[in-house]
Parts: sequence; structure tokens; C-alpha cells
Amino acid sequence: MPRYKLTLEYAGTGLAGWQRQANALSVQEVLERAVEKFCGTFVTVHGAGRTDAGVHALAQTAHLDLPKSMPENVIVSALNHLVRPAPVAVLAAERVSDDFDARRQARGRVYRYRILNRRPPPVLERDRVWHVGTRLDDRAMHEAAQLLVGRHDFTSFRDTLCQAKSPVKTLDGLDVVRRGEEIHIEARARSFLHHQVRNMVGTLKLVGAGKWEVEEVRRALKARDRRAGGPTAPPEGLYLVEVIYAAGTR
Amino acid sequence: MPRYKLTLEYAGTGLAGWQRQANALSVQEVLERAVEKFCGTFVTVHGAGRTDAGVHALAQTAHLDLPKSMPENVIVSALNHLVRPAPVAVLAAERVSDDFDARRQARGRVYRYRILNRRPPPVLERDRVWHVGTRLDDRAMHEAAQLLVGRHDFTSFRDTLCQAKSPVKTLDGLDVVRRGEEIHIEARARSFLHHQVRNMVGTLKLVGAGKWEVEEVRRALKARDRRAGGPTAPPEGLYLVEVIYAAGTR
Repeated sequence: MPRYKLTLEYAGTGLAGWQRQANALSVQEVLERAVEKFCGTFVTVHGAGRTDAGVHALAQTAHLDLPKSMPENVIVSALNHLVRPAPVAVLAAERVSDDFDARRQARGRVYRYRILNRRPPPVLERDRVWHVGTRLDDRAMHEAAQLLVGRHDFTSFRDTLCQAKSPVKTLDGLDVVRRGEEIHIEARARSFLHHQVRNMVGTLKLVGAGKWEVEEVRRALKARDRRAGGPTAPPEGLYLVEVIYAAGTR
Repeated sequence: MPRYKLTLEYAGTGLAGWQRQANALSVQEVLERAVEKFCGTFVTVHGAGRTDAGVHALAQTAHLDLPKSMPENVIVSALNHLVRPAPVAVLAAERVSDDFDARRQARGRVYRYRILNRRPPPVLERDRVWHVGTRLDDRAMHEAAQLLVGRHDFTSFRDTLCQAKSPVKTLDGLDVVRRGEEIHIEARARSFLHHQVRNMVGTLKLVGAGKWEVEEVRRALKARDRRAGGPTAPPEGLYLVEVIYAAGTR
């Protein structure tokens, strides 16, 4: 059973997120159905991480075991044909060692959150950004973001249903930059808690809108209570940008 | 009847183009319906130019006469509310003189054409780019494009149904650049013939794919025969980026 690593792009709009669900179509199910048509047998596709419904990916990774060895470009072309019309594309397929694990071996994840910060609603970028009509102070947001960088108990920023054993994570970077009409927030860590990025973004938005002082973010973090954090930003602005592996992992 | 200039963003997907049609919803009709709800009376919205079905705009312009003077931000907010759910947004409304004419006074138009040049199909940018799966030589395309710049008879690149009196136009610029996985073609002129940009792009794509030599573009131009030009590129990659007016025109 040769193992392959897949690199995937998808639009979260209309999909139930990464993980297979009983009553809604997920990215995982789209891929597993395509693989089943391709090789005639059911094979589980193991993602590097779960993304929520509505969240997009520029380069999610996954691994799967095919019944037999196939040329990488054939896998890519066949799966891209078979996933249609779902908004999922296989960007690359790569033969990896039998013990490669997309999730366990990932050394880092990069997420980007896009806010469209202008009065008129999004049109060309509908379902691809969070629309915030009032002017946000991106410098104050960046300053507040730096208070979250480092090793902390992120209880105030994780979903109350989060099943991770520990709320302690190391946030390697959280950068806020304005790009024309958009504000981009880039988050980097080995791994994240459930809703952590969206909860951090929802909190930084309060700072940007002048509703919270920068220091209130520190207080929220220290409270270790989800009720002390800001609201959860909507999924449509969030992109899984990259899953990082150690050089030579394959 | 105070006159206003509107700046408009729209996604062409699912719309019949700019101009009002009998049996399909156009951008013009979306706006005219919204204006009628807003001010209780039918008013024609005059666009700077017609865009085809499927073609997008980042900043189309138009003018209209309202029954009475209204604050600009009220016009913007009300129309953005009333056009919903159509993929049209009013970016700005500006009081202009009674003889301002969005089309006649336009001094230039800028269009951008986006090609997604990678094997996997578009997902996040579906309906927003032309997908060309084979590698294109953007330098050869740019070189060929320069043969079209200047004052020429563009019969080979205008639709056979084009109603312009003269096929002679001055193309001020046609630049081809690669931006990551995309190739962008930017066209600038005072005005364009029907399908001119899409026909030029379809021709440059033949050069990029190695099917035409650069010099064949010169021969096509000289033929003054639509059959000598390349095919029409699809609408979904085309964006009206800007309509230019002389400084102080309003």
C-alpha cells in the first residue's frame, strides 16, 4: 500500500469543513469519494488538521494509502476530474514513506485571516473575507496581537468544546498588516486550539474598532476563561495557508 | 434633477452584462431597480461602457439624475442595501455637474485579464480567472503584445457584430506580467472595440502556448480580417479596472 501526500486547495463555502459528517458534505468525503472512484476501493484520507465549515485552504495537506503505485501526475489529474463539481483541487501528490503522517509530523501551521475593511459590502470577494464596515486601527491590532505571541494558556481563546488535553500552546507569530482595503492577520504556531485563530481575530477586531484598549487583551488572556475573550470571527475570512514539515520529511 | 457619478464594483457571474436586456438580469437593471425603490421614480443609469456577460468590474462608472439632492453617503448605503442579493456594490457616489457624462467624458479605460496558469483547476478563484493548464511563455506574450500597441485598424480583433463606426483605435498599452500562478494582461486605451481585449488575449495565449510565433500577431493585425485573429478569451478572466476622466471633470 504505497503512501502519498496530497496538497489541497479548497473553498470552504457550502462544505461542512474538513471532517466527514453524517449529514453534510465535507472536504474529506469529497476526496474519499473521488479516491474510491479512482482506485475502486475505499481509502481513508487523513488530513493534517480539521478546518471548520466555511474555512478555506490554500495548501492543506493529507496522506492516504493507494492499493498500488501510480504516477503522481496521474493521481493529480484523475482526482481533480473526479472531485468535480466540489470546490476542491489537488495541487500536488507526492510519494512518501509508509510512516509519513500528515498530522503528526506537521511542525507548523500558518493561517491567514482576511478582513475587508470598507463601507461597501464585498462582491468579488463575497464568502472570501469578513466584511467590517467601520474603519479599524490596524496598528493597534498589531500591538495587541504581540501580547498573545509566546507560550500561554489560551483558554480564553479556545472554544468551550475544544477537546485538546492542554490549553497551553506556543504562538510563534501573529502579524496584522493593512493591504489596501483589506487587513490581513497571519498566525503561525506548531498547532492551534479549536477556534483559536477566529477567537483571537474577533478579539483584535474589538481593539481595531476602539472598543477595547490594547491592555484589555492581556487581561483577557490572563483570565483563562472563554467568556473573557472576544467573539468568534466568522469562518469565511480564514485560510489555512501552509502546513510545515521538517526538511526531508516524506 | 441633480446629477451623480457612481463608482461600481460587480461580479459578472450570473449577470447578463452591463446593458439592460429583455430576458436576463443586467447590472444596469439591478441598479435601476434599486434606484427606483430608493427614490420612488424610474431613472436611467448611464454606464461609461458596456461590459459583456460574465465580465467583472472593479470600478465601472455611471451617471444618473436623482429627483432631489441627497447626501452622497446616504446614496451609497441605500443602494448597497437595495441591490442585494445581486453581486453589485456601489463604492462611491459623487455630485457632479449637470452636463457630466460618464461615457462621453471618459478619457481612458483600463482592463485587466487574469489567466490562472497551472495544471489544477481554479477553486477559490472559480469564475474569476481563465484557467489555462499548459505552461504559457509570458515573455513571448508580452513581446507579441507590443506589436498591437499604437494606432491601428483592429478589425482582426473586433467582434464581427461590433457597431463602432471605425475599426481604428489607439492602444496605449498592453502589458503581460506573471504574478505567481497567474498571468495578468493589462490593456489601456481611450476606448475599445467590442471583444477587443478578449480577442487580443485569445491571440496572445496562442503565442504563450507556442502555437503562434510572435510575428504571426503582426500578420493577423495587418490582415484586417477577424478570421485572421485568435479566438475570443472567455469573459470570466476580464475586469474593468478603471475609467479615467480629465482632472477636474465632475
